[in-house]
Amino acid sequence: MGDRQVPDIVVGRLPIYLRALTFLKADNREITSSQELGDRLGISSAQIRKDLSHFGEFGKQGTGYEIRYLENNLKEILHVDRMWDVVLVGAGDLGNALASYKGFAGRGFHVAAAFDADPDKIGHEMPGGLLIEDVANLEARVQAAGWKIGIIAVPADAAQSVANTLVGAGVIALLNYAPISLIAPSSVRVEQIDPAVHLQHLTYYLG
Amino acid sequence: MGDRQVPDIVVGRLPIYLRALTFLKADNREITSSQELGDRLGISSAQIRKDLSHFGEFGKQGTGYEIRYLENNLKEILHVDRMWDVVLVGAGDLGNALASYKGFAGRGFHVAAAFDADPDKIGHEMPGGLLIEDVANLEARVQAAGWKIGIIAVPADAAQSVANTLVGAGVIALLNYAPISLIAPSSVRVEQIDPAVHLQHLTYYLG
Repeated sequence: MGDRQVPDIVVGRLPIYLRALTFLKADNREITSSQELGDRLGISSAQIRKDLSHFGEFGKQGTGYEIRYLENNLKEILHVDRMWDVVLVGAGDLGNALASYKGFAGRGFHVAAAFDADPDKIGHEMPGGLLIEDVANLEARVQAAGWKIGIIAVPADAAQSVANTLVGAGVIALLNYAPISLIAPSSVRVEQIDPAVHLQHLTYYLG
Repeated sequence: MGDRQVPDIVVGRLPIYLRALTFLKADNREITSSQELGDRLGISSAQIRKDLSHFGEFGKQGTGYEIRYLENNLKEILHVDRMWDVVLVGAGDLGNALASYKGFAGRGFHVAAAFDADPDKIGHEMPGGLLIEDVANLEARVQAAGWKIGIIAVPADAAQSVANTLVGAGVIALLNYAPISLIAPSSVRVEQIDPAVHLQHLTYYLG
């Protein structure tokens, strides 16, 4: 499990495979193939087999992949066979959307706390019921709780400062929604969600 | 430009390269290298050179890439050397965040119209000033305007129906935020934004 030599680009595809397997399982399917997964995902079947081969032998020649077995293995590999508390910073429109996001359920994540700097928001409930806390207490709360994962949903001009606070308090994985390039120590993993990147991927195919 | 044989996985990395170049330019940098880009992005320099070589010769041996030149070329290749109108469906928290998103500026996209089914929202302004229109008029409006790109920011149980309407009206590129696997004709490109996928990429590296 978790061979450290696996290229990050391969690692980044594993959650996509896991999601596809979960969708197939929801359709009461039991067996799939690299061909079927590839067709669904726009990835070649050879690439999928090669990616998975970094982690073991999950399929049988001629019979394909047992969906539940491969799903469980990918959950273990990605460490989402457990629940992770996530700390959310930013209780604006995006933060509200994330606090009530239905796509976290059963996939390993739970928004444990939310913070904002706006006195009009602090103490109020977000959609989903989470109480908005004062960002002034962010560092102490993260340290006390030992949260390792943070979501940054604040405006661009506040994002680096929030990242610094989170990292200073012990967070080692950041999901950044702000349209800036965060600076973080190399020991901290950063993922960015950037709708313009996805739209540009789409417009490549438009004339 | 736009060699149809380029693997989609390569295409998907071009907007990441473009964003990195834009950040470098903002730092008043003029020249970069595949090594520097790779270090910033966690992608090998060989991969970056190979990806770019699908589209031409952008660097000079020993001197690297001229940032502005490569940026302009990538904009052309991704067809974001122009502005694209995007139609947004869903004026909830996520839609509001997208309507005022600062990361679209200068990157090829403009939210041209927004629709919702909620009578309490229709006719009201979103953050940024866009008027929320009745989703009942979505098909006619898309057809009349000729919009090709749609963003789906509605709840999961409404997303497929919205996708069907958009596609029926002529949209050929969808950015889906709903946590479901959209079904669309093969002529329609779909990208999904799924924070759980990014969080799972991060937890791979957490013990």
